[in-house]
Amino acid sequence: MLSKSQLKLITSLRQKKYRTKEKLFIAEGIKVVNEFLNSEMKPHKIFCTTDFSHSLSEDTFQLISNEELKKISLLKTPNQVLGLFEIPEEKVIVKAGLTLVLDSISDPGNLGTIIRLSDWFGIRQIICSETTVDCYNPKVVMSTMGSLKRVNVRYTDLEEYIKSTKLPVYAAMMNGENVYETKLINEAILVMGNEANGISKEMLDLITNQIAIPRFGDVQETESLNVASATAILLSEFKRA
Amino acid sequence: MLSKSQLKLITSLRQKKYRTKEKLFIAEGIKVVNEFLNSEMKPHKIFCTTDFSHSLSEDTFQLISNEELKKISLLKTPNQVLGLFEIPEEKVIVKAGLTLVLDSISDPGNLGTIIRLSDWFGIRQIICSETTVDCYNPKVVMSTMGSLKRVNVRYTDLEEYIKSTKLPVYAAMMNGENVYETKLINEAILVMGNEANGISKEMLDLITNQIAIPRFGDVQETESLNVASATAILLSEFKRA
Repeated sequence: MLSKSQLKLITSLRQKKYRTKEKLFIAEGIKVVNEFLNSEMKPHKIFCTTDFSHSLSEDTFQLISNEELKKISLLKTPNQVLGLFEIPEEKVIVKAGLTLVLDSISDPGNLGTIIRLSDWFGIRQIICSETTVDCYNPKVVMSTMGSLKRVNVRYTDLEEYIKSTKLPVYAAMMNGENVYETKLINEAILVMGNEANGISKEMLDLITNQIAIPRFGDVQETESLNVASATAILLSEFKRA
Repeated sequence: MLSKSQLKLITSLRQKKYRTKEKLFIAEGIKVVNEFLNSEMKPHKIFCTTDFSHSLSEDTFQLISNEELKKISLLKTPNQVLGLFEIPEEKVIVKAGLTLVLDSISDPGNLGTIIRLSDWFGIRQIICSETTVDCYNPKVVMSTMGSLKRVNVRYTDLEEYIKSTKLPVYAAMMNGENVYETKLINEAILVMGNEANGISKEMLDLITNQIAIPRFGDVQETESLNVASATAILLSEFKRA
């Protein structure tokens, strides 16, 4: 049984201000919830329609009906479980190989994909502008497929952050140097810009190396690659060398 | 003003069977509709809330209210225009450099991203299994950002198609050869498999070169890259050489 106050809490966590207040976020589906349970993430409450194989205390685990899950789920086809987890403290990692910096990424699916990519390519930390979508947004959590537990995501003032490091700063820009012909250094920062507007003006002066993925299609239009696709290709380029 | 029969037609085109029957598909938003209007795509009817800068005949163009656009739009924030276009005849292209083959891609966003990537990397044709999501699905059309006009997408029996060519057949598979160490031939076929199940059993015998993107993260779990991210990296590898 789901109480009214639980229903209210869960629904409120779709909004960032309540996630910040309660220090909790939502994860949905067997795979993602299992990934988090098998990590340092602390479960607050796990709502599930069937018995869950995990050795959770009775306090943490709660059986609910399919109708109740439907009410609290953001999925069209809810997948047995919705878990509330504690938002971990932000960690500061110094010297971590390649650091990814996100300048106002706004689409939750893009951020989720980028976190998953970072996990694959062994990127330990992502630094986001305060204007980047919250990584504990339920849609982001869903599309990370659990990678969020292995990648440290921090929100801060990008200018200050970059100025505090002495690393080369690469950025993906339309008129940058052909990335296939650029010698890439792995102890560095890679900046990816907003979906519509690219790198913000304030950041431009801080970029030391502009790079670009060349276009091979023969029609020269203004079209660009999706930011998650571009991140995939650039991380691959940094790591393959 | 939108007539009842128009409303019914537009809503019906969200389903593949009606798209096939009417030979029409939906495109939304200024950017995408403009891309199609500036192409060989034939507009059937353009519904718009403001005067549209294009020199369309009065028969093709129709002014509607914001409320009407809201009714027919699939977007949370409708963007001024919804167009119906004729589905073009499938073309058969022989010898086109790298051909991308999609084996049961099911997510519309993934297919849209893959079409956009193909356009960027100059891939002229994508061959899809009959089980792959329809490229005229409104969500696919939206995420292609207009690229659909430049990339030829054909649905056919994959086994038959591959057997009819004499080209090397690369496929992205977990245990394949490290793609960074593989000599890639561009006159070839690249097969990408289903999001959850990978390459189908029937196809396995037809693959001549299994390739893989190495994982750099140090936690060895079963996690894989999203299929659109993997396609981005592999197309980049084929083209950079």
